[in-house]
Amino acid sequence: MSNDVMDDQWYMQTALQLAAAAQGQTDINPVVGCVIVKQGRIIGMGAHLKRGEGHAEVLALQMAGSEAEGATAYVTLEPCSHFGKTPPCADRLIEAGVKRVVVATEDPNPQVAGRGIARLREHGIDVTTGILGASSRRLNERFNKFIVSRLPFVTLKSAMTLDGKVATRLGDSKWISNEAARQEVHTLRHQVQAIMVGVGTILADDPLLTTRLSVPGLHPVRIVVDSLLRTPIEANVITNREADTILICAEEADPQAVRRFEALGIRVIRSGKGKRVDLTQAMQRLGEIEISSILVEGGATLAGQLLKEGLIDNMIVYVAPKLVGGSGAPGLFAGEGLDYMRDAWQIHDMQVEMVGDNIRITGYPKKGGGDLCSQGLSKKLD
Amino acid sequence: MSNDVMDDQWYMQTALQLAAAAQGQTDINPVVGCVIVKQGRIIGMGAHLKRGEGHAEVLALQMAGSEAEGATAYVTLEPCSHFGKTPPCADRLIEAGVKRVVVATEDPNPQVAGRGIARLREHGIDVTTGILGASSRRLNERFNKFIVSRLPFVTLKSAMTLDGKVATRLGDSKWISNEAARQEVHTLRHQVQAIMVGVGTILADDPLLTTRLSVPGLHPVRIVVDSLLRTPIEANVITNREADTILICAEEADPQAVRRFEALGIRVIRSGKGKRVDLTQAMQRLGEIEISSILVEGGATLAGQLLKEGLIDNMIVYVAPKLVGGSGAPGLFAGEGLDYMRDAWQIHDMQVEMVGDNIRITGYPKKGGGDLCSQGLSKKLD
Repeated sequence: MSNDVMDDQWYMQTALQLAAAAQGQTDINPVVGCVIVKQGRIIGMGAHLKRGEGHAEVLALQMAGSEAEGATAYVTLEPCSHFGKTPPCADRLIEAGVKRVVVATEDPNPQVAGRGIARLREHGIDVTTGILGASSRRLNERFNKFIVSRLPFVTLKSAMTLDGKVATRLGDSKWISNEAARQEVHTLRHQVQAIMVGVGTILADDPLLTTRLSVPGLHPVRIVVDSLLRTPIEANVITNREADTILICAEEADPQAVRRFEALGIRVIRSGKGKRVDLTQAMQRLGEIEISSILVEGGATLAGQLLKEGLIDNMIVYVAPKLVGGSGAPGLFAGEGLDYMRDAWQIHDMQVEMVGDNIRITGYPKKGGGDLCSQGLSKKLD
Repeated sequence: MSNDVMDDQWYMQTALQLAAAAQGQTDINPVVGCVIVKQGRIIGMGAHLKRGEGHAEVLALQMAGSEAEGATAYVTLEPCSHFGKTPPCADRLIEAGVKRVVVATEDPNPQVAGRGIARLREHGIDVTTGILGASSRRLNERFNKFIVSRLPFVTLKSAMTLDGKVATRLGDSKWISNEAARQEVHTLRHQVQAIMVGVGTILADDPLLTTRLSVPGLHPVRIVVDSLLRTPIEANVITNREADTILICAEEADPQAVRRFEALGIRVIRSGKGKRVDLTQAMQRLGEIEISSILVEGGATLAGQLLKEGLIDNMIVYVAPKLVGGSGAPGLFAGEGLDYMRDAWQIHDMQVEMVGDNIRITGYPKKGGGDLCSQGLSKKLD
């Protein structure tokens, strides 16, 4: 894609930038950007900024005013066609007399799913679709999963040495990644609804898990996976009230401990039988309370369990220019692991970029297994 | 550095390309390229192609013939000033009447070390130095180490999953990296004088360790670190005679086994006391027999020991888009490892590039330790 030529992509790129800027502040809603153009000039711009408030198209139409008649609107997501918390945007574009609408991608929301585009066309509006569609879908990948599955989109973030270690054999991990990488992680925190860690991370590091940047950011909900409620009552995630905290425990957690945390205003969710948290069930419960995106920040036991249960949608791994060695030093994932290389989870769309002297690797793990694929299930596994 | 403008760098880049093409075929000699230019035209080109045969300058002068008078010569390494296996190149340039010589970098060979440049200047030749010096030094990094230390330059090559594993918990490692990465490794084999593996790799995979490419390549010497001579007599590295094989064993290796291998024309080097090979001493022994560069291809035990003894000069790690998990699955380095992250080995000049869907990460590990650096030893450790 070239951005050096003014064309539909050029304006859509601007609309996508508007949308991206709002990431993290729209709750379970997608981010959407809109640019309205007439006779070579941008006459309106907007982005959906807050759940329950104006959609991107409405804000851009307001800026354009009566100029919108005969104009072209670039929208990163199909305009809605249903009455939700606001009236349908498709109708607003029709009323404003917009002549052409360029849409990056259809809305996966089953309440929309093509109806917005159909509605525009019924009213004689020229609709072009698929301009930077992949970029728009990537931008809303968390929303896109949640809206159809009601399950949170899970991003695993990790920092490792070049020899794949997240700590030394003694558990020392301060610090692996560089300052620039750590600032990226705080930006990610702003962009998700929740951070998840295992209780081991609380016991080892007692982190705050708040968003700390040179400008104010939003604090995600802190989720601690803590089967038997070993989180100390004086831990930072309990005493610090900048963000909410949810503890996820197993059936056998002490009911008195549950009551003690609840008395402090901490939400406790029980998930799974016996002594271990059922993470798959926990994700369903978190989805029910509208947690649509989770950043997992540690440790190896939680990560290993999430991987095993196929719950990791996206990975972000920072590789630091360091070696610590140690057969017993922990890697990204604790647990047994797979037996054969041919069954490895595959990382789709692996991307790599330098962040100062660290490397950032991102990708999407999918269950592997050559045998399954050769049985014609490859499409399902994609 | 821009290569879009014809200038001294432009011609030096061409000379460096000539040198790079010969990498692997000059034995313990450096690779050197030379371009001779007169009145806007290249009139001679050459590269040192084989130890004991013509140097780059001589071959380029031969091509230029009498035209060389008044010309400019671009040489990637300071012309030699001593009689070795060939007469000094500085004298040949002087005799040919070259007017100006551009040199990328001084020759670290203590027999040259500035004397070639001095000799040219004494004869009124205009000498410019330092043009693409860093590139030239990088190209001959193996030679540069060997010529001053008589120790081989050791490159550790490894392929790992994104979670840092070189095999599954059952030891399965076929295959981690992609075909393109494996072809790069065969190219690397052509470029070094020896490949080194631990006996575990022989026992597990029975590799040939020859250079297999779509065009014929040179086969490096195969070195197996095998403390107690467990290499089977029918192993491929023993029966296949495309390349020489050296076994490195410890003091306690069975003398009868030594004789058995020697009877087959296999060189056996004893290094270190007791049951374990002393790798530092082994490197000295290999240097003595003019092995100036080694590519270490596995496994984790050998790599861990080399790292511990500070014997790894360069690392090339291919990261495949796969995850296998497993606390017990092997990583790059076996052994105890370090206790604290602040003491981590630092990877200098870490570079990253995509090779198809694999990532190639390269760098130079140096002993770390914040404390040592703060004692003013940082320069030494660089």
